[in-house]
Amino acid sequence: MKLTTFLIFILTISFTTTEILSQKNNSDIEKRVRDLVSKMTLEEKVGQMTQVTLQAVSKKQGTKDQHHELDEAKLDEAILKYHVSSILNVYDVAHEAEYWHEVITKIQNIAQKTRLKIPVIYGIDAIHGATYTKDATLFPQALAVASTWNKDIAYTIGEITSIETRASGIPWNFYPVMDIGRQPLWPRLWETFGEDVFLASELGANYIKGAQGDDISKQDKLATCLKHYVGYSFPINGLDRTPAWISERMMREYFLPSFEAGILAGSPTIMVNSAEVDGIPGHANYHLLTEVLRDELKFKGFVVSDWEDIKRLYTRDRVASSPKEAVRLAVMAGVDMSMVPYDYSFYELLLELVKEGKVPMKRIDEAVSRILSVKFQLGLFENPFPNKELLKNIATEEHKQANLNAARESIILAKNDDDFLPLKKDKKVFVTGPTANKLSPLNGGWTITWQGNEETLYPKEKNTILEAIKSKVGESNVKFMEGCSFDADINSNEAYMEATNSDVIVLCLGEPAYCETPGNIYDLTLPKAQLDYAKKLIATGKPVVLVMVEGRPRVITEIVKEVKSVLVAFLPGMEGGNAIADVIFGDVNPSGKLPITYPKYPNGITLYDYKPIENFDSNRYDPLFPFGYGLSYTKFSYSNLKLSSDKIKVNDKLIVSVDVENVGKLKGKEVVQLYLTDLYGSVSRPNKQLKGFEKIELNPGEKKTVTFTIDKSHLSFIGIDNKRIVEPGEFIVLIGDLKKNFFVE
Amino acid sequence: MKLTTFLIFILTISFTTTEILSQKNNSDIEKRVRDLVSKMTLEEKVGQMTQVTLQAVSKKQGTKDQHHELDEAKLDEAILKYHVSSILNVYDVAHEAEYWHEVITKIQNIAQKTRLKIPVIYGIDAIHGATYTKDATLFPQALAVASTWNKDIAYTIGEITSIETRASGIPWNFYPVMDIGRQPLWPRLWETFGEDVFLASELGANYIKGAQGDDISKQDKLATCLKHYVGYSFPINGLDRTPAWISERMMREYFLPSFEAGILAGSPTIMVNSAEVDGIPGHANYHLLTEVLRDELKFKGFVVSDWEDIKRLYTRDRVASSPKEAVRLAVMAGVDMSMVPYDYSFYELLLELVKEGKVPMKRIDEAVSRILSVKFQLGLFENPFPNKELLKNIATEEHKQANLNAARESIILAKNDDDFLPLKKDKKVFVTGPTANKLSPLNGGWTITWQGNEETLYPKEKNTILEAIKSKVGESNVKFMEGCSFDADINSNEAYMEATNSDVIVLCLGEPAYCETPGNIYDLTLPKAQLDYAKKLIATGKPVVLVMVEGRPRVITEIVKEVKSVLVAFLPGMEGGNAIADVIFGDVNPSGKLPITYPKYPNGITLYDYKPIENFDSNRYDPLFPFGYGLSYTKFSYSNLKLSSDKIKVNDKLIVSVDVENVGKLKGKEVVQLYLTDLYGSVSRPNKQLKGFEKIELNPGEKKTVTFTIDKSHLSFIGIDNKRIVEPGEFIVLIGDLKKNFFVE
Repeated sequence: MKLTTFLIFILTISFTTTEILSQKNNSDIEKRVRDLVSKMTLEEKVGQMTQVTLQAVSKKQGTKDQHHELDEAKLDEAILKYHVSSILNVYDVAHEAEYWHEVITKIQNIAQKTRLKIPVIYGIDAIHGATYTKDATLFPQALAVASTWNKDIAYTIGEITSIETRASGIPWNFYPVMDIGRQPLWPRLWETFGEDVFLASELGANYIKGAQGDDISKQDKLATCLKHYVGYSFPINGLDRTPAWISERMMREYFLPSFEAGILAGSPTIMVNSAEVDGIPGHANYHLLTEVLRDELKFKGFVVSDWEDIKRLYTRDRVASSPKEAVRLAVMAGVDMSMVPYDYSFYELLLELVKEGKVPMKRIDEAVSRILSVKFQLGLFENPFPNKELLKNIATEEHKQANLNAARESIILAKNDDDFLPLKKDKKVFVTGPTANKLSPLNGGWTITWQGNEETLYPKEKNTILEAIKSKVGESNVKFMEGCSFDADINSNEAYMEATNSDVIVLCLGEPAYCETPGNIYDLTLPKAQLDYAKKLIATGKPVVLVMVEGRPRVITEIVKEVKSVLVAFLPGMEGGNAIADVIFGDVNPSGKLPITYPKYPNGITLYDYKPIENFDSNRYDPLFPFGYGLSYTKFSYSNLKLSSDKIKVNDKLIVSVDVENVGKLKGKEVVQLYLTDLYGSVSRPNKQLKGFEKIELNPGEKKTVTFTIDKSHLSFIGIDNKRIVEPGEFIVLIGDLKKNFFVE
Repeated sequence: MKLTTFLIFILTISFTTTEILSQKNNSDIEKRVRDLVSKMTLEEKVGQMTQVTLQAVSKKQGTKDQHHELDEAKLDEAILKYHVSSILNVYDVAHEAEYWHEVITKIQNIAQKTRLKIPVIYGIDAIHGATYTKDATLFPQALAVASTWNKDIAYTIGEITSIETRASGIPWNFYPVMDIGRQPLWPRLWETFGEDVFLASELGANYIKGAQGDDISKQDKLATCLKHYVGYSFPINGLDRTPAWISERMMREYFLPSFEAGILAGSPTIMVNSAEVDGIPGHANYHLLTEVLRDELKFKGFVVSDWEDIKRLYTRDRVASSPKEAVRLAVMAGVDMSMVPYDYSFYELLLELVKEGKVPMKRIDEAVSRILSVKFQLGLFENPFPNKELLKNIATEEHKQANLNAARESIILAKNDDDFLPLKKDKKVFVTGPTANKLSPLNGGWTITWQGNEETLYPKEKNTILEAIKSKVGESNVKFMEGCSFDADINSNEAYMEATNSDVIVLCLGEPAYCETPGNIYDLTLPKAQLDYAKKLIATGKPVVLVMVEGRPRVITEIVKEVKSVLVAFLPGMEGGNAIADVIFGDVNPSGKLPITYPKYPNGITLYDYKPIENFDSNRYDPLFPFGYGLSYTKFSYSNLKLSSDKIKVNDKLIVSVDVENVGKLKGKEVVQLYLTDLYGSVSRPNKQLKGFEKIELNPGEKKTVTFTIDKSHLSFIGIDNKRIVEPGEFIVLIGDLKKNFFVE
């Protein structure tokens, strides 16, 4: 029962040891920053706020046939004439780590020639590992990481990505994506940790802790970057970089908390939403970039624009009537560094604005101080150069094992009629489909290239699904035909004939690699060519194991009933082929759970934490597979749900425990998921919300007690006046098939 | 160019003669209301706020096989014991007008027995004519009315709907829907006047003026009801009664203006949004129902709940923790009358709340005064009874002609390769498809029954498309087979054979009749059975004329290239069959224009007034047929676009004129559409926005000059601080293929 009185509170920021340490460092750094800024000319300051892309200082593009080449004259100009603070990106194909050392060394050598010897900070999109370092360990993408529901895995991926990126000489990673994936059409859905605020916040924070440790000056750590602040992931129509409508209340309820978690985890940089919310482009949003981010969330790091987005305030969004006005708007809204990225217009225009008194020096000093502080924190003043010793840390066997482990835990067994899987290894297997024998669909965008779709550049030694199955059951037991491409028939009639000679069909469907706007789609349903091909194979009467390799949940409703088993793999990375084969043949017991709702239809999509009105009258949460769902080859039984009290005060903690037993015959991992329902609220409350999860491993017959602590942060929501509140009243704890009510007074 | 200074203004409310007249009446009425309220007991007051459905006072349901019967004991109880103010709806099939007289007379007879003789106000959904009066004139539904782009037609439909509804003895119509149709999946899209704020506001206001005139006590007028205040039409996922996310800025920009237009047009009642916006159920939204509606929009009428929605604050939305709290919340938010509708719980609970001091008597008196004021305005105190003299006004020949005229102007010719249409009348025509020989799909929901899908109840003398074509070209030239239903094959093979013997195929596809949640869909694409059937007919090689009869733009992209001509009819009403045949055979030159964007795909939909970011990079406004589009059998040429000045002050008016010439060989009607582009704004401005339109008729060779007046209401938008502003700067006027720039200083 909701009582009409309620309590407004501010989430207490709990300082961990890490944060206390970094506070000490910070006071030294603050002094060094102040000293340095006091010596800088206006030109040097404005240069500190300028970031250009590698292309701007290059002679030759890197392609699959040509090696990249720096243009040293342009590099001199960038750093010596324009005092450029930061360079980013690759142009356009991953480099060998040694070449990165060469590039970064040349850059820092020039920086050392500057009056104040301020090092350049190189930034890169190392999205699921060191994307642009050749042969780096490339993990499952975020949506697949979220499918593991394993905080340790998120942590480890952060750790190893840092090791390999920093080993490449690069100290700044534009990652993690803290956007919440509540729009399944969005072509960047797979860059998110899924639809749930709590799950994404936990995994993102763990990634950051793994990536940064307690000291980002360490040679195996780096500075992360939270992106894309904020509301970018929820375009109304699902297309990338189109308008979102998110009121203050919804922003605070659904999209700000994961960024707050990232800030608390210590991320020192934030990248801005490229698109617009309620008509205000991200880069012009003073309220979000300053009032919320600085005044409320107490973010101390620096804000970097996204690609060319300050210019676009004029050229695209037309909220500025000149390029200069665009610069003024963005800087005054709170953008500290401009990813210009091709020229020095930002530098020139900002100089003019300051000289004309249209941007106060105070704002410039603030931005520059924030940027320099991160450079100090990274130890770049002491150690600007790549360290050759670190090269051996890239793509180690240990990293590969961690990658395989992550991929294995990410695979979701979504259907398994008659316990059809795992397969025995003596079966004649027909492997087919557009994702069966390619690495690029397993990896998706941000792999070797931006779009990730240059299959020929992928490492030859990595296994596709086909290769992994062959290595498991022997070449002679496996037949392969592609059958269809992503959107057209290839040789489906021959494939049909071949399939009839097999014991089982492993049908690998899904999406090619893509990224950002090129990944826009206009129908969530899987392309007809693939569905038609599936129907043809189903018509053989042979059992079909469907493997979905995809960046978002493409609708497969019309074929799913007729297949025996379904694996949802999303984008499991370089070891994805092996992991999928491991699950199919029972070398791994699947433990992935959906971090999103898998919809039945392309429209009318309802998410798991729906409001009561969405489950009323003829409206239902009726997905193909629900959030949190995933089968195992063993069975788990829940019992003995206990609460420390059935009545707590707002500031009390509630201890919840439950016994979980493996009642099947195989060792397996289970994700214990705790949901809360707030029965009545002054703003309509979700059906249920995830507020705790733990992944545990149990031997057959083994039982463990799992304990959760619920506090006011879990009970709270954003009230009518847009403030976070807890309303006294009745709540329900749900774990597995058990539930218990309690009251908050 | 946007200047940084700007001007905040409040739209001036211009008092028309109508409003001045009604102001005089109002002062008399105010006195009468005050006197009456002062005499009322608390019970009588709370009864005045109570509305029940006819079912609650009925013995027998009306069905196709059984006549409705009142329960006079229950009616006595409702009015004498519970002092019920209002009864609504039908139970469940349209009555003869004479029976309505009987019902209303019985009701008012009982009301006359009450202490204060306060008449009951009967309310009904007379959506496209007098829905629930047997044989009434049933017009095109709102989306089809919007397709006429003809303000006079909207006015006339309002006028005739009032005449026939009031002639039935009913003085209150829950119409028009002033929701903006920006979510094409929404099953009530066809109840709206389309996606554009200006078009919908103009048509809705004209409807109201036709319906109400300058005195709603007249026996051919009634009280309209604006609905559903506000934001109901924009559910995120397209399902009816699911959450919308609409910030204050977007609410004021897109959804409030049409309600403001309705209030200015004089509508004295408003119905509340059944769903929720940003987590606040419509019926609990004090900000929108009181702060905005009363304090800002100065609405003086009364607010009625939607069906059972106050209860649902407890049973569904759980923003109230008891039925009583639900009543308190809704009444204190600003709901004046509760459509309870089955019982007297609202009455009992509100009585208790007042006695307990939880709802102040002041709030009760306010609500009761507003309700009584409308009863006085309607002249119900003088004339509560139906007037037998008026019965002759129902379904007159004149009304039928007006209906036919509206339907004719609503038909949109969306494609006409090689000027294939109009057809000569000597052709052998194969008419087919699920909408070819039924009246219900032409009419949609709110026709005779709620869902409108009881085909057997439809009047036998009205023409389906098939019948209309037969009457045009003779029985012997027409063959018919249904071919497929809405979602399954019927006899497509036989139909294929029959089609091969014809000269032309008229293929009528679309949707069955539906309304509200039962009309939810999960894929905007037309069902596969219909598309497959279309492909089969296309394969005959015979030319196909595709007629789309539908409540929303179902996706037909995969067949549209292969057909010669496309008519989009939406829901053209009882004369729709005739109108479609008239257009196909050239007895009418089509003049309908799309009031919505007709999408190519089920996802990734962009509307016509997109933001620049939606037409950037790989994003495009690329619909199947754009907003404002529609072909004619003649051609119009635009020339001589003139502006009264190329520079105006904010408070100036700009006169825009353009010459339009019929350069074809047929008489025809053209909708002259004026769009404005605001080049730069502090909130991102739409690509273009409709700000004027006029439908004109021209003989071949005839030229007319059309003049528009632009003032600050057209230049304004909702700024960063959520206030309506005009920003000085550069604008573009676009009419036809012409454009001219001007500056606002």
